[in-house]
Amino acid sequence: MSTRVPAAKPMFQRVALIGIGLIGSSISHACRRAGLAHEIVGSARTLATVDTAKRLGLIDEGFASASQAVRGADLVIVCVPVGLCGAIAQEIGPSLSPGAIVTDVGSVKGAIVRDMAPHLRAGVHFVPGHPIAGTEQSGPESGFAELFDGRWCILTPPPQTDAVAIEKLKTFWQALGSNVEIMTPEHHDLVLAITSHLPHLIAFNIVNTAAHLERVTDSEVIKFSAGGFRDFTRIAASDPTMWRDVFLNNKDAVLEMLGRFQEDLANLQRAIRYGEGDELYAKFADARAIRRGVIQAGQDTAAPNFGRAPAAPKAVDAVPGAPGKPDTKR
Amino acid sequence: MSTRVPAAKPMFQRVALIGIGLIGSSISHACRRAGLAHEIVGSARTLATVDTAKRLGLIDEGFASASQAVRGADLVIVCVPVGLCGAIAQEIGPSLSPGAIVTDVGSVKGAIVRDMAPHLRAGVHFVPGHPIAGTEQSGPESGFAELFDGRWCILTPPPQTDAVAIEKLKTFWQALGSNVEIMTPEHHDLVLAITSHLPHLIAFNIVNTAAHLERVTDSEVIKFSAGGFRDFTRIAASDPTMWRDVFLNNKDAVLEMLGRFQEDLANLQRAIRYGEGDELYAKFADARAIRRGVIQAGQDTAAPNFGRAPAAPKAVDAVPGAPGKPDTKR
Repeated sequence: MSTRVPAAKPMFQRVALIGIGLIGSSISHACRRAGLAHEIVGSARTLATVDTAKRLGLIDEGFASASQAVRGADLVIVCVPVGLCGAIAQEIGPSLSPGAIVTDVGSVKGAIVRDMAPHLRAGVHFVPGHPIAGTEQSGPESGFAELFDGRWCILTPPPQTDAVAIEKLKTFWQALGSNVEIMTPEHHDLVLAITSHLPHLIAFNIVNTAAHLERVTDSEVIKFSAGGFRDFTRIAASDPTMWRDVFLNNKDAVLEMLGRFQEDLANLQRAIRYGEGDELYAKFADARAIRRGVIQAGQDTAAPNFGRAPAAPKAVDAVPGAPGKPDTKR
Repeated sequence: MSTRVPAAKPMFQRVALIGIGLIGSSISHACRRAGLAHEIVGSARTLATVDTAKRLGLIDEGFASASQAVRGADLVIVCVPVGLCGAIAQEIGPSLSPGAIVTDVGSVKGAIVRDMAPHLRAGVHFVPGHPIAGTEQSGPESGFAELFDGRWCILTPPPQTDAVAIEKLKTFWQALGSNVEIMTPEHHDLVLAITSHLPHLIAFNIVNTAAHLERVTDSEVIKFSAGGFRDFTRIAASDPTMWRDVFLNNKDAVLEMLGRFQEDLANLQRAIRYGEGDELYAKFADARAIRRGVIQAGQDTAAPNFGRAPAAPKAVDAVPGAPGKPDTKR
């Protein structure tokens, strides 16, 4: 986390981070780790965040505005909620250096292309991106260098984009630890609607449903959350601004997936109501096969405790309510 | 995991495990750890499981039938899917020793009382129980001694139950590492419907929805699962027989919670369709407060990586697709 990387030949002279939250700060950490930039500069919505980022060594220089921050940068990474990307593009457009690569990290890609591309002039290489990694934390202090290791980053360059710029950004993300895949914005938005957006919507929803029960208290919901609910609360603790923007900007794909989900759920509901055990068993057994695929693809661990906590000492005097135990279900 | 515990005064002379899967085997491990039983015996649905349990040192003696296994036991723990508990009670009823405590570990309690109690004669102490702990693994090899540490175990004794027997079982579960709470079967079933049964139903459902998409391939769903879907696949990998029985036997409470969930989801769907950003933001922000409660109650860890994996080495050459990385969202 030291400032100024001594690497002989960093990939970029000056990387500008516009927005320094979980993703921006993790990019800085991973970028320093691999010595990819001669210097990292940045701006944020508030000066307090800029100061924190400087104090943490995330940026070498901080700026009050995005347009100042991008001056002289050969890589600009916009790390703000999807809904702000258009305004940022409009602001930085005139200040971008010819030949600079401009990318983003938004969870939606169609709307990003629609909102950002018109403000970026010829000679600037616009390669939208989305690292599929994160935690439920936010802010400049939540980042860490390993966030992208072994995870996928999807790039969705428009058809005429310079191949050299795409290749360079791809190499950059690989050096941050990611695997890189290239697809169209439309396909990205469909894939993410089912693998990320719908799961989050459902998690937010069940947490809200639980909060409004009259016959079960909030404290009971929390106390007995290890039965499965706990994992939903974690997903539902993600940044509300980011997620509002995701749903507003990937409306069609999310509504399509949600419609399918609801049809399937109505079917399960019916099977429960009429006591159709074979039907329930078959549907539950199918789900196990998909899980095996996730493990095989290296996207999760099969360890019984997911490494959630070190094994408890071999003694009876475990602290009641001690955090981080292995269970997930029941 | 050695056989025969040398403890001077174990709580029970002979503990009989009827069913030796994830929970039964974990009880054995935790029981050995704390020296709670002079001997542990057991039976299982198949002789292969009995043999495995003996080989692993989970039981000192194995039996082909439940009625043989319970003879002379002062604690009988029925660890089979909820739907089999009635038949087991009928089978073991005549062979139970006077004064024995009979309990179970089922995720539903009203149906257990309904199905088991009629077969257990006076002089036998029936104290239904439910340890809220588990993993998505099953079978005798999946258990471990720490499973119950810091987790809750709910006991639902009928009104006339002997207070000494309840206290003894409570002490037993505390010695296994759990906190113990006592409530009625009806309230248990309502609390678990929202904290465990509905979350599992939703996880099973979204995994099935994903499996039937035409425009997104299975391999894409798996590859990009770190965006949130991954966590649902883990929950949905739980034992299908156990869960079929849960839904068949807690129908009313599950259908009530499911109805509320669907109403709330329809509201969110509408907010997305009409672009109501403030509404979405407010609902998502509420969910964060519940998460804070879960952390404070020690039922999960706030560590950014949930301890999912040790930090990657500080190098660029991370293995692509390496398992167990920290992310959960995006």
